[in-house]
Amino acid sequence: MKLATLKDATRDGRLVVVSKDLSRCSEVHHIARTLQAALDDWAHIAPRLAAVAEGLETGAQPSMRFHEHDAASPLPRAYQWADGSAYVNHVELVRRARKAEMPDTFWTEPLMYQGGSDSFLGPRDPILAADISYGIDMEAEIAVIVDDVPMGAAIDEARSAIRLLMLVNDISLRGLIPSELAKGFGFFQSKPSSTFSPVAVTPDEVGDAWDGGKLHLPLIVDLNGKPFGRANAGIDMTFNFGELIVHAAKTRPLSAGTIIGSGTVSNKLDGGPGKPISQGGAGYSCIAEIRMIETIETGAAATPFMRFGDTVRIEMKDADGHSIFGAIEQTVAKYEKQ
Amino acid sequence: MKLATLKDATRDGRLVVVSKDLSRCSEVHHIARTLQAALDDWAHIAPRLAAVAEGLETGAQPSMRFHEHDAASPLPRAYQWADGSAYVNHVELVRRARKAEMPDTFWTEPLMYQGGSDSFLGPRDPILAADISYGIDMEAEIAVIVDDVPMGAAIDEARSAIRLLMLVNDISLRGLIPSELAKGFGFFQSKPSSTFSPVAVTPDEVGDAWDGGKLHLPLIVDLNGKPFGRANAGIDMTFNFGELIVHAAKTRPLSAGTIIGSGTVSNKLDGGPGKPISQGGAGYSCIAEIRMIETIETGAAATPFMRFGDTVRIEMKDADGHSIFGAIEQTVAKYEKQ
Repeated sequence: MKLATLKDATRDGRLVVVSKDLSRCSEVHHIARTLQAALDDWAHIAPRLAAVAEGLETGAQPSMRFHEHDAASPLPRAYQWADGSAYVNHVELVRRARKAEMPDTFWTEPLMYQGGSDSFLGPRDPILAADISYGIDMEAEIAVIVDDVPMGAAIDEARSAIRLLMLVNDISLRGLIPSELAKGFGFFQSKPSSTFSPVAVTPDEVGDAWDGGKLHLPLIVDLNGKPFGRANAGIDMTFNFGELIVHAAKTRPLSAGTIIGSGTVSNKLDGGPGKPISQGGAGYSCIAEIRMIETIETGAAATPFMRFGDTVRIEMKDADGHSIFGAIEQTVAKYEKQ
Repeated sequence: MKLATLKDATRDGRLVVVSKDLSRCSEVHHIARTLQAALDDWAHIAPRLAAVAEGLETGAQPSMRFHEHDAASPLPRAYQWADGSAYVNHVELVRRARKAEMPDTFWTEPLMYQGGSDSFLGPRDPILAADISYGIDMEAEIAVIVDDVPMGAAIDEARSAIRLLMLVNDISLRGLIPSELAKGFGFFQSKPSSTFSPVAVTPDEVGDAWDGGKLHLPLIVDLNGKPFGRANAGIDMTFNFGELIVHAAKTRPLSAGTIIGSGTVSNKLDGGPGKPISQGGAGYSCIAEIRMIETIETGAAATPFMRFGDTVRIEMKDADGHSIFGAIEQTVAKYEKQ
């Protein structure tokens, strides 16, 4: 089943069930007004939403056109957004570019940061920033939404709590990261509001591409209309989603509706750093990564971060070439305070 | 006005208005079912809640007994919990104890971490931990709940967005902090679920003790029934709440219901580290601080972190000795996974 949240006058929007081909949707306010309400009582509500989804495919269900640009993030605000950094290749490149050692434990214990979750952007909303000196970058990732997870959950319990899959643009302000991390308390100002795909889907919607912990499909990232990244989200993911959830729930429970992110998707090439798509590589899911490779190879980064007017598009397609989640497509614009 | 959330079968509990003396309360489901619902539309809902509060004091309003132990945290789950570290004295002591330099910028730019906000504990709930080797510690703090704050808010805008005041126990697992901070992404497992006072109050309830940015009253912290801390929350607070909110909102808006914490309240004594209450000092709002002073003075910490069965009580009283927020009172217990 595929779910989306249409923007309306409320803070949480209104939940709709979307057809597999993303062309039509059905209102479900008689079942659950919002996605959070559905997640709060998933065992009872999901079967009723699934019946609507079934009716949408057969034509038995009243429906209307679905437009991706009418969608908010599936959860316009959430009680938790915890983002891992499961593609350790990405982390290793960051460290190499700044000539820092990466501890061996990074291969055995997930990195994860607590993100802000009160003000997600809609998938077609602009990325507003006061200044391009902030170093505006996309981070294209996969995320899952989980049901309640008890403290100290085991891996099987963690995997079985996964309810929905989404794409994320974990927007980062690279220029603010070094001084913020140096203070020791992690990201805050350097991680503005994140953006999720128009549609969240149950794992069965992607068939065998979902192995219970990883999503084995290329993540399509285009920058200003040109192919920028095609890294496969199932490759080089050192920690699967089950392991990320276990990490997040070690000392506290996770409430239904918690979003867990994969971190920037990143593939190696022949055991080393990847190459641009134009050179036959899988490309990159963030600008920082190509800048790191440029730095390692030539001593200086050449590709600029995003500037006002630049557009990033993030999407994933099934084996038949159909969009699974709809597209995140965002243009950077100058923030003018009113 | 004073507000609380009574535990019930729902995830968000039910909002009540509480009398000034904390003895009685009135149900307000006809006005707002939950505190978040009230915050989502504060301009319209707050005056109606204030009318109930008025009726409670005059006896015109139907009411029932209020028992602090029936209360959940005012927001049992929230969309954002961002905790500052505004008492730089505390930070300086941490650094001195581990012989690390503190950057000068710590006096001019707030430290803040993004906390988990999906599973707050009730004010009388046990602190469950799997192992005391985690180094279980309380951190007694002040917090504010804000209305919507635009990105890039100025200080006046930030201060005027403060809607409610509370106390917090920002429980910390000291044994997990060093390795977690060394990874560079901030706290995660080392900060389990936090706890807030039974009652949240509008700033006018504390009169002149609230100066618009700081709360000038002693924070009462008792450990196992003995006085442990009496630090004044208005003293040595390097950054006031307005400044903390400005910091939090620099690169993204804050949604209504965002909770901003002060960090562990900590007072200097004659320009140096404080002393225990038994020695005439203001004591401490966390165990780590007395351990730091022991380490600085004798080379080793003597006071243990909390063990199973230990109880911490956190409260604040007005000039007449009446409890303002009710008490957080929590006992550490072993977590047994079911």
